[in-house]
Amino acid sequence: MATVRLMADDELSAEAVEVFEEIRAARGTEYVNNFWRALAHDPAQLRATWDRLKAVMAPGALDPLVKEMVYLAVSTANSCGYCIHSHTAAAKAKGMTEEMHAELLAVIGMAMQTNGLVTAMQVEVDDAFKV
Amino acid sequence: MATVRLMADDELSAEAVEVFEEIRAARGTEYVNNFWRALAHDPAQLRATWDRLKAVMAPGALDPLVKEMVYLAVSTANSCGYCIHSHTAAAKAKGMTEEMHAELLAVIGMAMQTNGLVTAMQVEVDDAFKV
Amino acid sequence: MATVRLMADDELSAEAVEVFEEIRAARGTEYVNNFWRALAHDPAQLRATWDRLKAVMAPGALDPLVKEMVYLAVSTANSCGYCIHSHTAAAKAKGMTEEMHAELLAVIGMAMQTNGLVTAMQVEVDDAFKV
Amino acid sequence: MATVRLMADDELSAEAVEVFEEIRAARGTEYVNNFWRALAHDPAQLRATWDRLKAVMAPGALDPLVKEMVYLAVSTANSCGYCIHSHTAAAKAKGMTEEMHAELLAVIGMAMQTNGLVTAMQVEVDDAFKV
Amino acid sequence: MATVRLMADDELSAEAVEVFEEIRAARGTEYVNNFWRALAHDPAQLRATWDRLKAVMAPGALDPLVKEMVYLAVSTANSCGYCIHSHTAAAKAKGMTEEMHAELLAVIGMAMQTNGLVTAMQVEVDDAFKV
Amino acid sequence: MATVRLMADDELSAEAVEVFEEIRAARGTEYVNNFWRALAHDPAQLRATWDRLKAVMAPGALDPLVKEMVYLAVSTANSCGYCIHSHTAAAKAKGMTEEMHAELLAVIGMAMQTNGLVTAMQVEVDDAFKV
Repeated sequence: MATVRLMADDELSAEAVEVFEEIRAARGTEYVNNFWRALAHDPAQLRATWDRLKAVMAPGALDPLVKEMVYLAVSTANSCGYCIHSHTAAAKAKGMTEEMHAELLAVIGMAMQTNGLVTAMQVEVDDAFKV
Repeated sequence: MATVRLMADDELSAEAVEVFEEIRAARGTEYVNNFWRALAHDPAQLRATWDRLKAVMAPGALDPLVKEMVYLAVSTANSCGYCIHSHTAAAKAKGMTEEMHAELLAVIGMAMQTNGLVTAMQVEVDDAFKV
Repeated sequence: MATVRLMADDELSAEAVEVFEEIRAARGTEYVNNFWRALAHDPAQLRATWDRLKAVMAPGALDPLVKEMVYLAVSTANSCGYCIHSHTAAAKAKGMTEEMHAELLAVIGMAMQTNGLVTAMQVEVDDAFKV
Repeated sequence: MATVRLMADDELSAEAVEVFEEIRAARGTEYVNNFWRALAHDPAQLRATWDRLKAVMAPGALDPLVKEMVYLAVSTANSCGYCIHSHTAAAKAKGMTEEMHAELLAVIGMAMQTNGLVTAMQVEVDDAFKV
Repeated sequence: MATVRLMADDELSAEAVEVFEEIRAARGTEYVNNFWRALAHDPAQLRATWDRLKAVMAPGALDPLVKEMVYLAVSTANSCGYCIHSHTAAAKAKGMTEEMHAELLAVIGMAMQTNGLVTAMQVEVDDAFKV
Repeated sequence: MATVRLMADDELSAEAVEVFEEIRAARGTEYVNNFWRALAHDPAQLRATWDRLKAVMAPGALDPLVKEMVYLAVSTANSCGYCIHSHTAAAKAKGMTEEMHAELLAVIGMAMQTNGLVTAMQVEVDDAFKV
């Protein structure tokens, strides 16, 4: 039901093949998920997205699992069903337990609720919170 | 500029006074921020929100700093300026360094971007991601 | 801070003057708020918006106060600060009491929370809910 | 397609069983919809959500049907398909006629439109709307 | 799965029949898509929406293809799957090539990303950008 | 009121200085706006964002003004006030006339309205719109 066709391996441009090989190597699996097959129509966008994603999601001051959970939280607030599915799977693959998942959901729900209350009341920012 | 008046200490109902005292004790400061002063018009909502927030944000399978960063991510996707200010301050108070903040911002930006790409292409969920 | 200038009465086109007169007559006040002064740069949009607003917000199967509260709820979920301010004022003018306002806020917060939980869990629609 | 499995009756914890019994009693039906079955993985969240929902949606200064329509409006602005389905069904069960539904849709559409116009023009809040 | 039934041609009111005939004439096809069949329950809303859509999307200072692409961009940010499908189809019918589509997607992704970064940092508007 | 301090020229890292020089050269002005000064705390994010923005917004199958208008539309649906201000200014600098601006606003408003109607009715995608 996508608005662009998902590209099969034998339809890819040389540049897209290269990115797909990097995705396979980084993840240790032959499977390349639909997002990349949709993006492959635009090899420059495919390359830029993969390169930046790899850099952003790498271990750093935050560990990769925390980053996946933040990704999932943003995707939820943006109602991106595909993203929620793929980043829930990724978070589990990186060690998110059922208990961690439940707490993550609770924080998302809590944030949504108070976002709504604060916005509806148009509460002014306290001076104490200003940099 | 709020759409409800912020309540001063001497205007609070008995139930609201009790919640304010709990907030002060939990945080170790006399200062009670504007969100609670706006919410205090409805003591039942104030009590329910504080009780649930305390439970949800407590240490558990996820540590409180991770929870603050998830809260900040949701608040950003929902464009809640007040919430972004207050939870950035809270995350810093719980140990978020400049480097962690920068990585959090990068993940939020990345998630927003791919949320947009996926949604615009209406990519179908891979079977591999289904529970 | 608007991205279009607010138009003063003596700058209006003839068509815009006519709409402003209708707004004043319908509301029983000389005051025309900023939204209409921003929209007046495009008299066709001004006319279409005012005509449709008048029809949609008129008493019908739902009473005008209920409509204002629905308007406020949508504006909150869309983070439209101006709209929240103007429709809170309009709801109060139409009889929204403090107690009604508090209950409205509680429903908005509850809906936001469960929207987040449902979306994060990607719950499938029950057959019982399908038309 | 949910990212958590829907729990069957014989998998529930004692605390979840108790909440399910309350849901059945309150609604006068054996049927418990998918949202609660997804939430049942976290009995504390299940309990907190059900308790607060019951309190918030009870008759008060606003009648329950008005509350359902506000819920539906928020769910629409947040693109929560499941929530739209379940709260449309609930609103109908509480007496929403076709005519009321049509007017509700018209108000939601109108609010979305003017939210977009106001935000795109960044109209400043009138002093008259400030508390 | 809609929350209102799609109306068949032989169920339409006289006013709805008239709008459907205008849609068919304007588009040069007998096919009337689901949106209009859902909206037909409320002939006044159907009429108002069609009339305004026709006026807004007509050639003017912006050409119709640009308008379709803007429509698609807004629908993406609002996660309206139906709207994304229908306006992608409409944009292609009006001449959007694969290359234009790819560039449009890239701009949407870029805007989403920087929207997230700016909002998370709560950057203040430069004086230079104020009207 | 930002949650990160805006960096002055004499506080920038060498990598940030380099990006600022490229921004100045590309735009033919000494002025560097607040977004970049906030982003400069993370030189890698600054570099990645500037490089991708330059590539995405360059003339191609779509002209730069169309791209600015799409950017503005997305920023509006995401309620990013700063982004709306900066991209309205950029669109004007690239030739957006008052008439084009008015038509852009009308399309955004129309899209928002029908997004709301379609979502509230959960209209199913026509087979004719599927790729």
